[in-house]
Amino acid sequence: MTIAEIAKDFTEMLRQGDSASAAAKYNADDIVSYEAMEGPNDVCRGKEAVRQKGEWWQANNEVHGGSIDGPYVNGDQFALRFKFDITPKATGERTTIDEVGLYTVRNGKISEERFYY
Amino acid sequence: MTIAEIAKDFTEMLRQGDSASAAAKYNADDIVSYEAMEGPNDVCRGKEAVRQKGEWWQANNEVHGGSIDGPYVNGDQFALRFKFDITPKATGERTTIDEVGLYTVRNGKISEERFYY
Repeated sequence: MTIAEIAKDFTEMLRQGDSASAAAKYNADDIVSYEAMEGPNDVCRGKEAVRQKGEWWQANNEVHGGSIDGPYVNGDQFALRFKFDITPKATGERTTIDEVGLYTVRNGKISEERFYY
Repeated sequence: MTIAEIAKDFTEMLRQGDSASAAAKYNADDIVSYEAMEGPNDVCRGKEAVRQKGEWWQANNEVHGGSIDGPYVNGDQFALRFKFDITPKATGERTTIDEVGLYTVRNGKISEERFYY
């Protein structure tokens, strides 16, 4: 698969709300995930750790709706723009997430994901 | 200036339509600019070459309107999402540009810009 095909398939799975399957299919075993904030979870290493991070996020946020723009491709990377209307269970206050995710693909798998906000 | 301050000021100048001044103020002398397409202009090296690329683009596209989302920051990088309604003079056909720009800042200057579409 080309980078454009991988990006398109991955994005389509996210749009269908199936981020867990998208990660299972495309994340490399040694994927590294970088958040923009500093803290204990700013760098997350390995497919299993990233899976747990995703599971935690799904469990702790109620998603009312949202949209994903992209994919935007350059070389071995693609970017997505996320806008989500959510209520974090910790605060109960409805808010909007607006961020960019940048994915690096190596040997057909996502070796790095980095989030900007 | 922090990365967030630089990103905000740079973005504000772009929103005011003054991309030439934004580049003059923030581009490093040895900036490298990467387009997503392959071709003679896919990599552009140096502040003066990037300035000429911008000037060429302005001269060859009529911009009807648009929007810039962001900045989205992570570490020494920030991303912007561009949507522009333009007519390239070469074709005369009105079209929409939808892309992500990723900027890397070093010593207070933009050392790299990379565009995804």
